[in-house]
Amino acid sequence: MKEDILLAMLTKADDYISGEDISQRLGVTRAAVWKYIEDLRRSGYVIEALPRRGYRLVARPDKLLPTEIRAGLTTDRFGHVVHYFPQIGSTNDQARQLARQGAAEGTIVVAEEQTAGRGRRGRAWVSQPGSGIFVSLILRPNLIPAQAPLLTLTAAVAGAEAIRQLTGLPAVIKWPNDLYVDGRKVAGILTEMSSEMDTIFYVVVGIGINVNTSSFPTEVSASATSLALEQGRSVCRRQLLQLLLEKLEYWYQILSADQDQILERWRQLTITLGKRVSVYSPNFTVHGLALDIDHEGALLLETETGEKVKIFSGDVSLR
Amino acid sequence: MKEDILLAMLTKADDYISGEDISQRLGVTRAAVWKYIEDLRRSGYVIEALPRRGYRLVARPDKLLPTEIRAGLTTDRFGHVVHYFPQIGSTNDQARQLARQGAAEGTIVVAEEQTAGRGRRGRAWVSQPGSGIFVSLILRPNLIPAQAPLLTLTAAVAGAEAIRQLTGLPAVIKWPNDLYVDGRKVAGILTEMSSEMDTIFYVVVGIGINVNTSSFPTEVSASATSLALEQGRSVCRRQLLQLLLEKLEYWYQILSADQDQILERWRQLTITLGKRVSVYSPNFTVHGLALDIDHEGALLLETETGEKVKIFSGDVSLR
Repeated sequence: MKEDILLAMLTKADDYISGEDISQRLGVTRAAVWKYIEDLRRSGYVIEALPRRGYRLVARPDKLLPTEIRAGLTTDRFGHVVHYFPQIGSTNDQARQLARQGAAEGTIVVAEEQTAGRGRRGRAWVSQPGSGIFVSLILRPNLIPAQAPLLTLTAAVAGAEAIRQLTGLPAVIKWPNDLYVDGRKVAGILTEMSSEMDTIFYVVVGIGINVNTSSFPTEVSASATSLALEQGRSVCRRQLLQLLLEKLEYWYQILSADQDQILERWRQLTITLGKRVSVYSPNFTVHGLALDIDHEGALLLETETGEKVKIFSGDVSLR
Repeated sequence: MKEDILLAMLTKADDYISGEDISQRLGVTRAAVWKYIEDLRRSGYVIEALPRRGYRLVARPDKLLPTEIRAGLTTDRFGHVVHYFPQIGSTNDQARQLARQGAAEGTIVVAEEQTAGRGRRGRAWVSQPGSGIFVSLILRPNLIPAQAPLLTLTAAVAGAEAIRQLTGLPAVIKWPNDLYVDGRKVAGILTEMSSEMDTIFYVVVGIGINVNTSSFPTEVSASATSLALEQGRSVCRRQLLQLLLEKLEYWYQILSADQDQILERWRQLTITLGKRVSVYSPNFTVHGLALDIDHEGALLLETETGEKVKIFSGDVSLR
């Protein structure tokens, strides 16, 4: 309801909308409208109220509040339930806990700042307060555990498309779980799962995007960038997150029907295929030509001796 | 230490062992020996104490107490930490919680009775109090999630071998996760996992064995049996659990070094291969000839039209 009132004011742009008008449109009493307006104000919205003219939205908080995410969101399910935290250890950890407690598919956890953000294999992920998108999405897919890496591919496709559509920047996918712009990393995906042998209980897909990050620690400044740095102006986090959720839902629906379509789109958006690469993992190092990915999300490489190998994970460097 | 004192008494069989003797063997004071003896008595051990003769073990509780499991156990790590419950919802749930809290590989959860024991896909598992083995083992294998089904194969091999060695009964494996004797189910395995895309955080392997179960509910009485019913006499649960843990550790070590060896042993112990089978799953039904299993634990079938299909899970009925 709060989102509906927000939307009603937004449609009026700089003009006033009367309490009567809102109350009729949404079928609630004027007293209820007033209560919701007060609620929005407490969340950081600046709303002017004039007798006989009504309400006018003066400023919206630059925060990924549930109202901000839901107002205007066109998904069927993704992002309808939002757990918002100004600061949290890790959105993935929080989402896993919610999933264990039975949270529905499509539930998201969003934070302005992560104090213990993680990348693959427990690596730290820098989360500057208020400048990025740190979101974790709960899924309950009808897949077997071996297919879970497909969800990382799906999220990568959705992320690259959302960035491209909103900013026009040529975001590309680096296998297995990163998005790059202009040779530098702008986003990462961390897919975690709880399953029995042949059934997935839940998957949490965590996505971190450097949106308006203005600077990076020295050790990553050569390899990391943000959308704002690349575009030369700040990017609306709310719009990007809404678009991301819409793309995620779209491709996730396709995943159950036609995996080939996702692989095909992934191939169009990746910089990894067709390149000579080195893959490093705790257990091995392989050099070779990246030929393709398969239905389990694995990378198919041809080594220098012509041998074909299938790689499930690792750090890839392009040569 | 309690286990050492228990072992010291056990080596004397029906004879007495003096407090002095125990205290010297184990390097503890006689007062400490007395404290441990009292502790054992509280756990249900009947221990006679005579002045100038010493202690004599008269009776051991018919329970899978940590002391019972650890006394004489020859594993390096498996079963050294035991969480014991007279009654619990599900040993797998408890083990998962312990694993999340950082419990070490080899930790086990044992219960005399499960009030919410589960089989695959959340099916109920009948757990008659004090008559079966309900154990869950925490593992932290260096495998990728797609290989986790290998742990079910490993547990099946260990379980079949332990039953064969202790009882002489011809236990066989039915893909994917059951043990049968004489056409009836005696044990089931439930493997659950927490992972990220390419790294397993932990696996819990739950094993339920009908050991001394004397009767089954009508709906499963035609398809289930127990070791005691098959052998015509009761089976020592402690010995079977110890042997199971030893076999599990043995084959688990081989798993990291030589998966082929496990597949080879599995093929010797299964009744599924070479048979015409029907596989039922929520998503499909397939009929065909069971040819082999592969390195992901999948079943390879040849259908009536000569097509070869790879099946990750399902309920198999032999035709």
